[in-house]
Amino acid sequence: MDIRKAKQEDVREIVRLLADDELGSKRERNEDPLPETYLEAFKQIEAQRGNDILLGIEDKEIIGCLQLTIIPGLSRQGMKRAQIEGVRVKQNVRGKKVGEALLKEAIAHAKLEGCGLVQLTTDKQRIDAHRFYERLGFLASHEGMKLSLEGIKE
Amino acid sequence: MDIRKAKQEDVREIVRLLADDELGSKRERNEDPLPETYLEAFKQIEAQRGNDILLGIEDKEIIGCLQLTIIPGLSRQGMKRAQIEGVRVKQNVRGKKVGEALLKEAIAHAKLEGCGLVQLTTDKQRIDAHRFYERLGFLASHEGMKLSLEGIKE
Repeated sequence: MDIRKAKQEDVREIVRLLADDELGSKRERNEDPLPETYLEAFKQIEAQRGNDILLGIEDKEIIGCLQLTIIPGLSRQGMKRAQIEGVRVKQNVRGKKVGEALLKEAIAHAKLEGCGLVQLTTDKQRIDAHRFYERLGFLASHEGMKLSLEGIKE
Repeated sequence: MDIRKAKQEDVREIVRLLADDELGSKRERNEDPLPETYLEAFKQIEAQRGNDILLGIEDKEIIGCLQLTIIPGLSRQGMKRAQIEGVRVKQNVRGKKVGEALLKEAIAHAKLEGCGLVQLTTDKQRIDAHRFYERLGFLASHEGMKLSLEGIKE
């Protein structure tokens, strides 16, 4: 599997991947033509320094993705942190360490950028995901708190 | 109390606030002259679109702060989320709703920016903080997972 940063022309396939999931199928609009909101969001991601979507590619197909955002801050002597969101792996390749490879690449990228910490939140009901992240060295030391502004449960 | 965005000339006082805390006194370097790492970090915050530090000011003194980062993303039809970090309130004004006012301002700002969600993580040992965020409408629905790249426990 190759890993590279997403480009504008990948957005169509990324949305297909996001929708290929029980929760995602309700949340996303995998339509043709693709709703403008996705393309607009990708422009905003590109315009924000330190914000990237990493893609796992096999046989020219996108089989996994995650979003990595480097956030500079003042605390801890001006430490940068890396935030991971939206980890997704195509259903028919789950269990093949695609997610692990993407996470390891994101962690390596965070180190290169000088981050002191990598962080993410994962739904408390997803016990398998917790074990997955713990195997990679993450500690469930914090509560992940969410406030919906849309009346949607995260 | 007034609330405004931090400027370069506030960094000295913000570091004093960050260090005015049991954990912070060990983590920060509240020295004169101020270590360059803080000023460099502030430049990087300013250079990242959507990243701001909000300050609570009373009698020209900084009595509270938080960092608010607006993160555009593709999932949920291109939903933006607001991430809150580094909430601090000066010790001698705790219990006077300074944190509440800062959080409410951050949430209002996130709404104005079109975010669908506000999120933060808080150490599991800080039970009072959980209650504080729950009173503001946050749900502890997620595990907050951290991977230190410095050998420092978050």
